[in-house]
Amino acid sequence: METRVAKWWGWGWEDVSLPVESRPALWRYIQERLKVDPGTIRPVVPLESVRVPPCLVSPGEVEQLRRIVGEENISIEDADRITHAMGRSYRDLIRLRSGRIPRAPDVVAFPEDEDAIRRLLEHARRRRYAIIPFGGGTGVVGGVEPAEGGDSAAVVTVDLRRMRRVHEIDVASGLATVDAGIRGPILEEALAAKGLTLGHVPQSWEFSTLGGWIATRAAGGLSNRYGKIDDLVVGLRLVAPAGTLDLKALPNEAHGPDLKEIALGSEGILGIVTRATVRIHPIPQARRFASRLFRSFTDGLAALRGMAREGALPDMTYLSDEEETRFVAANEGLRHDGRGGSGRSLALRILSARGFSLSQGSLLLMGFEGSRERVSHRRRRALGFARRAANLGPGPAHRWHSERFEMPYLRDSLLDHGILVDTVETAASWSRLPGVYEAGRKALQEALWASSGAGLVLCHASHVYADGVSLYFTFLGRQREGAELAQWEGVKAAVTRAFVDAGGALSHHHGIGADHAPYLGRMIGEDGLVVLHALKRELDPEGIMNPGKLIARVR
Amino acid sequence: METRVAKWWGWGWEDVSLPVESRPALWRYIQERLKVDPGTIRPVVPLESVRVPPCLVSPGEVEQLRRIVGEENISIEDADRITHAMGRSYRDLIRLRSGRIPRAPDVVAFPEDEDAIRRLLEHARRRRYAIIPFGGGTGVVGGVEPAEGGDSAAVVTVDLRRMRRVHEIDVASGLATVDAGIRGPILEEALAAKGLTLGHVPQSWEFSTLGGWIATRAAGGLSNRYGKIDDLVVGLRLVAPAGTLDLKALPNEAHGPDLKEIALGSEGILGIVTRATVRIHPIPQARRFASRLFRSFTDGLAALRGMAREGALPDMTYLSDEEETRFVAANEGLRHDGRGGSGRSLALRILSARGFSLSQGSLLLMGFEGSRERVSHRRRRALGFARRAANLGPGPAHRWHSERFEMPYLRDSLLDHGILVDTVETAASWSRLPGVYEAGRKALQEALWASSGAGLVLCHASHVYADGVSLYFTFLGRQREGAELAQWEGVKAAVTRAFVDAGGALSHHHGIGADHAPYLGRMIGEDGLVVLHALKRELDPEGIMNPGKLIARVR
Repeated sequence: METRVAKWWGWGWEDVSLPVESRPALWRYIQERLKVDPGTIRPVVPLESVRVPPCLVSPGEVEQLRRIVGEENISIEDADRITHAMGRSYRDLIRLRSGRIPRAPDVVAFPEDEDAIRRLLEHARRRRYAIIPFGGGTGVVGGVEPAEGGDSAAVVTVDLRRMRRVHEIDVASGLATVDAGIRGPILEEALAAKGLTLGHVPQSWEFSTLGGWIATRAAGGLSNRYGKIDDLVVGLRLVAPAGTLDLKALPNEAHGPDLKEIALGSEGILGIVTRATVRIHPIPQARRFASRLFRSFTDGLAALRGMAREGALPDMTYLSDEEETRFVAANEGLRHDGRGGSGRSLALRILSARGFSLSQGSLLLMGFEGSRERVSHRRRRALGFARRAANLGPGPAHRWHSERFEMPYLRDSLLDHGILVDTVETAASWSRLPGVYEAGRKALQEALWASSGAGLVLCHASHVYADGVSLYFTFLGRQREGAELAQWEGVKAAVTRAFVDAGGALSHHHGIGADHAPYLGRMIGEDGLVVLHALKRELDPEGIMNPGKLIARVR
Repeated sequence: METRVAKWWGWGWEDVSLPVESRPALWRYIQERLKVDPGTIRPVVPLESVRVPPCLVSPGEVEQLRRIVGEENISIEDADRITHAMGRSYRDLIRLRSGRIPRAPDVVAFPEDEDAIRRLLEHARRRRYAIIPFGGGTGVVGGVEPAEGGDSAAVVTVDLRRMRRVHEIDVASGLATVDAGIRGPILEEALAAKGLTLGHVPQSWEFSTLGGWIATRAAGGLSNRYGKIDDLVVGLRLVAPAGTLDLKALPNEAHGPDLKEIALGSEGILGIVTRATVRIHPIPQARRFASRLFRSFTDGLAALRGMAREGALPDMTYLSDEEETRFVAANEGLRHDGRGGSGRSLALRILSARGFSLSQGSLLLMGFEGSRERVSHRRRRALGFARRAANLGPGPAHRWHSERFEMPYLRDSLLDHGILVDTVETAASWSRLPGVYEAGRKALQEALWASSGAGLVLCHASHVYADGVSLYFTFLGRQREGAELAQWEGVKAAVTRAFVDAGGALSHHHGIGADHAPYLGRMIGEDGLVVLHALKRELDPEGIMNPGKLIARVR
């Protein structure tokens, strides 16, 4: 059993933090670029002072829910209601830190098996309770927050994390059938005991769940190799108010429309994914890293495209644009040569002699894993596309890999200092990529400068395909005190419109939730929305499942 | 324009045939195994004597349809009605050859653009015409045959083959946007002009269309490399009676349920796929073949599994079980050593000295393509898993590749001789594979022997995945004269039940159509059927689209 406690107001574990002051060079760089006063402190309110809206469920009804879900599996405690009130977007953290919880679930249920879920849904249909499935709660698009307005009698959030059994590991077929509430580390521990791995490692991996990945079409850092979660799921079960989709695991089939693809990305609006059968892989025997500095982001993207078109992609790629490269360089304090910490001046001299510069170039981090032979072959093939880039050795890529679960903690420290910091992501075909990149960057810069007189817009490409790539923007500005949410909404709307207008995806892997729902029609068309509504009407006739998400309003 | 004429009664072009007599050793082998009398001849009736049910559409209405679809684009000719009355399954050919056309479309429409389709669907809704989308007409599961009974006022089959424009080739992204009625060769010609290929080559490739592949979730011989058509389609348009699903081409996205996957495999019951954006690839620079003989099918499957699990699959694999290997050996007349036709006795002596025998072993044909470096690397990796198999050189694989569009013609010749010959296919995870294989084989053998006192059951594995493989059975028996259809129905039902009971797929790539529809609930569950019905109600409220297919009856 997990005894570690998660922060109610920020990212991750309560006992982990990453103060920006611990990276003095980076902190100086941010201060300069954003013109922030290091003395500004925006504290988090104490938990006790957070006011949660009153619970709408009577004590008798709580007893009834306990009989349905289990004596120990129902909570109306404020602490549980607060930690299940929202996800972990910038908007969420701003509200949590200031103790503003506009809406919270009335009840949090922790079912231990599928039957409890079936009984609960049946009960909720009669009572007209809204049901919000909840995995790790790490989402950033408003996917687990009770909807504004609506006509539910109460909101029951269903935390799946007590459903974490590994039902079967079919070693011969490389398949595992697992409860949807399992978190990354617990799943990987069970698989590792048989020398296996799922290979799905999003940055939220420690906290997020299989069901959450499925419900949002998540992508992990090794998606070049293993695909997104969509590619890893071969069977699943979706328990909906009006029925159960039980889709068998087969290597492939021609059984009409693929109904798995209806559950994937369904974000809780159709039912609850209770278990899935996923593809698993041998634990890699070897792992190697490589880092290269291109003269420009354009050059780096051309190399990624070449690798992808020729089937020569590294298993992990992370290509930073010029601005993000400068940020990374600031973070690393220009202390090292990329080979492990020493010999800085020599390496920098070599770089500058060849005309490269960390303040101008585009940094590509790569990772390779598998059998020793595979690693060596794929490394050689990929690096063939980076011959004109400067070799920074394995160091930067290895360091990024080691720190990848740590970096999200930095956000909390930046929030402490009154800094707006958020991420948005999209994807585009290679031919549309320059347009989408420029449009996104311009929209962010303009909106940040307009609202705070400063801005820092970083971008990287991390999930690469033969036909295109995802773009992941991190942006920083100065908070407009007292208008933080309005400021953020303006920036978010500007960049979302820019992506969509330029032909990019509305989301590559964060999902739709409440935040992107108004734009979904631009992606799948009005008739696409009509089809989603039809699916919802069939599986969730009373409209109790996660109202207000994905499709903004049920018609 | 195509001037070549297709057979109305059999496979492929009218001017191509493959008489079994041209392969005397094979013919002798079949005679021996099936105890058939070579003198038996079952002729095809002349086209003139085929009676087509009367056309239910009045001359005035035909004029109306001409105004809607185009003057030259409507036919009520018997010849068109016959060639669009059914597909190319054994059952279809038995009926065509004997002139039994129980149901035919009343009208065949050949729209030239999407607007004509929209207008036609609108008109059909008002008139309550059934609409059957028709691509190459090569399907084998009853997907294009007008349904028995039903309450349609008339049946309009919509032949898409005049919609064959290539709208855009985005070379940078490796994407082509193409009309759905385009056939394999026309598409590949357009792509080849830019050095590109789709890489989707089913055995029906010369005749079948992009829309047909999409509607049935087709697989080509290079699926190990390029995937099934499902993996190649990144965007598409489905024109339905009640609306249009227009799904953008993006490299990946998290836009909720993937509605493309609703159109893929929809078999015309939701609407008509009018165009798609597909992934395209550089034309391979090099192509190599290899053939190996394993001691047993089990050994061969273990090698395929090893290759798949280690990412070392050939781009094309074709592993025959012992019975199919004997059949292939008979076909090749044991005349050659697998290296090109000469030196037979030496090769056979070597094989037998090492304990291998073409009458016992399991033949694996492999193909590799791409850049020279890729071909050489992948060939080396794959062959590493076949070290204990006997090397038959490139000959057999190369020959199979050259003849792959020719072999289907053999069926017509076998039918001339009163031989029942058909194919069924499934897929299973590696752990379920032995059970599915044995169950399928046993069901076929028992049913064939019970109905004709003889039988020949061949099997190969040709589409390989990390988690399993497809199995493709070819079976031959003696026709029960006068009861051919009842005989076939018994065999088909027995093997289909066997697959499903043993945990195999109902179909890996032939689809569901009318023949498999009664079993679909076993695969996707009753609630899965309910969801398909909900989709159909939304997109096709009057139920005019391809009634009786995929989901047996609209509730």
